[in-house]
Amino acid sequence: MSVKYCLILLFLSLPGFLATAENKLTGSNHKTNVIEQYSVFEIELKGPASGNPFTEVKLSAEFSHLNRTLFCEGFYDGEGIFRIRFMPDEQGDWSYITKSNRKELDAKNGSFVCSSNSDENHGPVKVRNTYDFGYADGTPFFPVGTTCYAWVHQPDKLVKQTLAALAGTKFNKIRMTVMPKDYDVYINNEPPFYPFEGSKEKGWDFSKPNPEFFRNFEEKILELQKLGIEADIILFHPYDNGHWNLDKITREQAEFYLRYLIARIASLRNVWWSMANEYDILEKTDEDWDRLFRVIQTYDPYSHLCSIHNGLGWYNHSKPWITHLSIQTPYLQEIQNWRKLYNKPVIIDECIYEGNIPNDWGNLTPQEMVNRFWIAWCRGAYCTHGETYIHPENILWWSKGGTLYGKSPERIGFLYKIMTETPEEGVYPFQNAWNKETYLIKDNEFFLYYYRNSQQAKARLNLPEDVKFKLEIIDAWNMSIKPVTGEYSGLTEISLPGIPYIAVRAVRAK
Amino acid sequence: MSVKYCLILLFLSLPGFLATAENKLTGSNHKTNVIEQYSVFEIELKGPASGNPFTEVKLSAEFSHLNRTLFCEGFYDGEGIFRIRFMPDEQGDWSYITKSNRKELDAKNGSFVCSSNSDENHGPVKVRNTYDFGYADGTPFFPVGTTCYAWVHQPDKLVKQTLAALAGTKFNKIRMTVMPKDYDVYINNEPPFYPFEGSKEKGWDFSKPNPEFFRNFEEKILELQKLGIEADIILFHPYDNGHWNLDKITREQAEFYLRYLIARIASLRNVWWSMANEYDILEKTDEDWDRLFRVIQTYDPYSHLCSIHNGLGWYNHSKPWITHLSIQTPYLQEIQNWRKLYNKPVIIDECIYEGNIPNDWGNLTPQEMVNRFWIAWCRGAYCTHGETYIHPENILWWSKGGTLYGKSPERIGFLYKIMTETPEEGVYPFQNAWNKETYLIKDNEFFLYYYRNSQQAKARLNLPEDVKFKLEIIDAWNMSIKPVTGEYSGLTEISLPGIPYIAVRAVRAK
Repeated sequence: MSVKYCLILLFLSLPGFLATAENKLTGSNHKTNVIEQYSVFEIELKGPASGNPFTEVKLSAEFSHLNRTLFCEGFYDGEGIFRIRFMPDEQGDWSYITKSNRKELDAKNGSFVCSSNSDENHGPVKVRNTYDFGYADGTPFFPVGTTCYAWVHQPDKLVKQTLAALAGTKFNKIRMTVMPKDYDVYINNEPPFYPFEGSKEKGWDFSKPNPEFFRNFEEKILELQKLGIEADIILFHPYDNGHWNLDKITREQAEFYLRYLIARIASLRNVWWSMANEYDILEKTDEDWDRLFRVIQTYDPYSHLCSIHNGLGWYNHSKPWITHLSIQTPYLQEIQNWRKLYNKPVIIDECIYEGNIPNDWGNLTPQEMVNRFWIAWCRGAYCTHGETYIHPENILWWSKGGTLYGKSPERIGFLYKIMTETPEEGVYPFQNAWNKETYLIKDNEFFLYYYRNSQQAKARLNLPEDVKFKLEIIDAWNMSIKPVTGEYSGLTEISLPGIPYIAVRAVRAK
Repeated sequence: MSVKYCLILLFLSLPGFLATAENKLTGSNHKTNVIEQYSVFEIELKGPASGNPFTEVKLSAEFSHLNRTLFCEGFYDGEGIFRIRFMPDEQGDWSYITKSNRKELDAKNGSFVCSSNSDENHGPVKVRNTYDFGYADGTPFFPVGTTCYAWVHQPDKLVKQTLAALAGTKFNKIRMTVMPKDYDVYINNEPPFYPFEGSKEKGWDFSKPNPEFFRNFEEKILELQKLGIEADIILFHPYDNGHWNLDKITREQAEFYLRYLIARIASLRNVWWSMANEYDILEKTDEDWDRLFRVIQTYDPYSHLCSIHNGLGWYNHSKPWITHLSIQTPYLQEIQNWRKLYNKPVIIDECIYEGNIPNDWGNLTPQEMVNRFWIAWCRGAYCTHGETYIHPENILWWSKGGTLYGKSPERIGFLYKIMTETPEEGVYPFQNAWNKETYLIKDNEFFLYYYRNSQQAKARLNLPEDVKFKLEIIDAWNMSIKPVTGEYSGLTEISLPGIPYIAVRAVRAK
């Protein structure tokens, strides 16, 4: 791993600062105090290892640039090592000063220069134009996500396969859990590391995180970053099933776990917070969730994207800490209403996966998986993929990663290309009361009509009267784009192939 | 047409009764006073032809059997002829006496004997077991409907084609309008008859129905009756578009029209009342609709099935005159909720038609049309077909009838067979909060799981532990039924073909 993956170690000559780099995250050993924008600036300090340094030692720092000061918690990384990680979001001079209840960690100060971001580093993703997303540096971001809940908890060989498979797709977001997962016959293996001291037999000491576990976890996030993939990190999930009892965590323990995780990984620019998967299946009240969201609000200096994924319940997505809707539903016709109601982006993070398992959430044809991506997009939302094909060793992509067998990822990649060719601003989904139509508009500039699984042999386009448009017929399944001869205005009728998964794109003629 | 089609003319020797049969409806000429149950007993009387006999002459009769008396309005059929039509619903002796504001029509009395119904005559269809339907004689009725709105308003040759096409299907209900229809490019032809005196140029005298129009209309209903098809008669519709202005009818005119129609056709056992298609597009208030429903309640002695079909609006289906829900929606997941809310049968009378026209309500693949029939049924409702394939002469089945080109009718016929093999009572749809599952249950007796357009390669059945079941795998598209070897109880996993449109039927082993 090289410095471009954003972690830099500072070797200051002050007492209490380590003289050698032991950080596994980068393996780098630099004496520069120049750090790339949106990369990680890390302060490494030596402190007490006795007692419980995780809870007994308080450590934080304030990072200042011009008129702004950001507060950032540090964390104990074992063996007497404390770290404070920070992602500078502005170029120029930064200074910092630490604060601790231990003298050897307190009032350490220093400075560094934040340089411009490199070509592949666009910074964290943020909400943009109310309903869409963009990187901090201004580059648009069109999420096309996938789901590999517990891929980081698999053996190395499988993890490498997963990364290789991801590299062959256009997926740029992945839903993944912090905690290991036990679900049905499909996944119940032990993870390489456990998140806390203890064991499933004897119980866990939730006040003592296992640094090895978290180091492994953050390495995986950096691997995703290399591939340009956002990590939509699921902080809590209801798939423990008494296997580890890692979900039997008190309110205070949960808050401590969150603060520890935030201190470790919030500085990684491709982090998104997904508070929970099927949050309502967990034994927590809405007040519990609100408190946990406020922990993120308080301790994440970067305000990473933050959402919560529903089971049957429905969290109030109007609350200020919710940046976007992360929805599970097989029914997409409410998307425009949700946009209107919440004025936030909508991601359909689970709409049933491509696969053939008997569970009714995992048996879509690839055609239907692709269809739902298009429908979601043309209704003004984004969709997330998952794959659940029966596998002799129960290595299903959705849970463990491994190999992609399905036919949808390639087509989702094709859709991604179409997305990137769409105007960045001013595009909105058509909405009538029936919500049958699925099309995107930018007034007088752009129309994208998607005809779903219909077989209509003609299309009627209601184009503006006084503007000329060029038309293309897009086959979402066969991945072809065919221009229609001529230029068109006003009410236009054209022939379609009369097969499902056809779209028509109308772009204003130059 | 023979006597079995239920119309009988009485030739009484009293003054004012016609001595010869001129009724085009049957052409029959019988002197018997025996009438088959659920057939039409008709009194024909001669009365005044001057003035406006439609409105100025009041005529009705009371028909009595044992302790029951039914009130029945007569109607003017032109040329000085008045008729009272009655469908006896009980076997045995009936007597009647007429009432009129004209002496020559008043206080005519007589009697007849109602004999048992013949094999193909099961009487009118009624609601049964809250959510289902059955004929009056106890035979179950599983509606599989189609839609030919204006088929009666087409030339004879086309009408004959329509009837021949219907005869080749299992459709047993048809949605059809009383008034002619003008819609888009697809239909705008003149009907062979107009419903009222006047013309589209000069306007209509809504107080003077055209007997020829209504005679033609009732002949068509009888033709359907011969084919065992229920006529779901749409009394008002919003597809006039200024072509005839037959929808520009006052409240009083509308009530008169309804009473006239009821007097003419309510005695036909295969009549259902559909108050309107897309009722909310018409310029009437809910109060107007309520009044019109009360007209039906008051003047239909048989309480025929009665519904109203929605556009974007939603009539309050709880009202007592609504016997069942007649719903337009492309989204079927609310069916179980509607059942729960209204405790009435649900018919999805419009869920988009099989076809390839550019209108978004007419472009389903045949697969999806069949899929929706199965989904609706397995959610505890019934579905209605329509066909809209582009046609060089604009003869689309949905509007004009003619020929069926689609691939769904044969598969709907296959589903109909499956329906008839289902237990008549005690079957209910499974409902969980997600409403993804689509299956029917009769506790310990019968399960029918339908896997929609999924491609799951296995099914998990949660059968009762202590009962043995025989299983069959049904392919709804390829119309095959394959038994699974063995008998099964409890949690059962079986292999499926892994293609869409598969169902599993579990029937208790004898």
